[in-house]
Amino acid sequence: MERFSKDFRAGLHDLMRWRRDVRHFRKDPVDPALLDVCLDAFNLAPSVGLSEPWRIVKVRSQSARDAALANFLDANTKALSGYEGERAERYASLKLAGLRDAPEHLAVFCDDATTKGHGLGAATMPEMRRYSVVGAINLMWLTARAHGLGLGWVSILDPDRLTADLDLPEDWKLIGYLCLGWPQDVSLTPELETKGWETRAPALRIEER
Amino acid sequence: MERFSKDFRAGLHDLMRWRRDVRHFRKDPVDPALLDVCLDAFNLAPSVGLSEPWRIVKVRSQSARDAALANFLDANTKALSGYEGERAERYASLKLAGLRDAPEHLAVFCDDATTKGHGLGAATMPEMRRYSVVGAINLMWLTARAHGLGLGWVSILDPDRLTADLDLPEDWKLIGYLCLGWPQDVSLTPELETKGWETRAPALRIEER
Repeated sequence: MERFSKDFRAGLHDLMRWRRDVRHFRKDPVDPALLDVCLDAFNLAPSVGLSEPWRIVKVRSQSARDAALANFLDANTKALSGYEGERAERYASLKLAGLRDAPEHLAVFCDDATTKGHGLGAATMPEMRRYSVVGAINLMWLTARAHGLGLGWVSILDPDRLTADLDLPEDWKLIGYLCLGWPQDVSLTPELETKGWETRAPALRIEER
Repeated sequence: MERFSKDFRAGLHDLMRWRRDVRHFRKDPVDPALLDVCLDAFNLAPSVGLSEPWRIVKVRSQSARDAALANFLDANTKALSGYEGERAERYASLKLAGLRDAPEHLAVFCDDATTKGHGLGAATMPEMRRYSVVGAINLMWLTARAHGLGLGWVSILDPDRLTADLDLPEDWKLIGYLCLGWPQDVSLTPELETKGWETRAPALRIEER
């Protein structure tokens, strides 16, 4: 059984502390071999029933990127209209996606119709397939950060519109639209905290039964 | 900006390789301080809009554990009835949860009604709150494994029944029922593969647009 040292565990803790949602990217390209290393995290990720329902789309053409950006801008405008007063001003001041600068865009889907895994573990909780994809993205996120790359997860999007715009099967459910690239800077503090939107909770909420 | 060494990155890759869904636990207790170290991963996890919607329940009383076990047994019987022939035999032969032996049970919920984060990033994709909880569980999973602990994620459960049995708010959506403890053994191969249920895909499915 593989054992992990105290030093390694301290490094893992640091990695989690330094992982950030990045919205400010340099435009330098990401080496294709390094992108492959990041994507390899999917091959190591847990999935319900070994269903491995993740489907990855590299969004590279100008037309596909333009569609994603327009989708974000529309959803962001709509989201802004849901706030009022000072909160609206604050929302408008936030940079919520690095879509224009990030060299790599990955749209990650869950194939809800996959038969891989034979439905094991997904009868009462079919959402486990989507959760499997979320977990895999988080492993990739850590891998990317360990190499110095930043990842930004864009959720201000109409997911069905994106699936249609990218001409993908209807059974593919968008889980995450990810910007990947070299961050302009990295901080221990989430940008939403720096900008006064929200703070970290002082303590976990734990109940006992 | 914190940098991570080649050695550390190799260790991270090993950690992801050795992470398993564990269903065979020794009964030895988990030191409460070590459990806290694992739970601390939640404090480092990403969440949409910094909403931190995770709610953690330590399931410790005999009555609460009995309710979870009965829930699993019912859901498992029902799931078995959905298979036929050899597949049913194979399903029946699998050990799909370590509920009886695992010293710690954690039920992890998403508070869909939280106002923390002011809804940022969750207008078009409200499921992002649940995905945030999934991500945090995956960070805890890695942390646990780095300390030699095994985690098993039980999804063969009726989530609403569990929420009711544990007398928790209706807005709390069950994300994962987790067994935590010292594994009887650890393998590089998923148990579902060893037992012939399903295999790892030979390659990732990647499209380009």
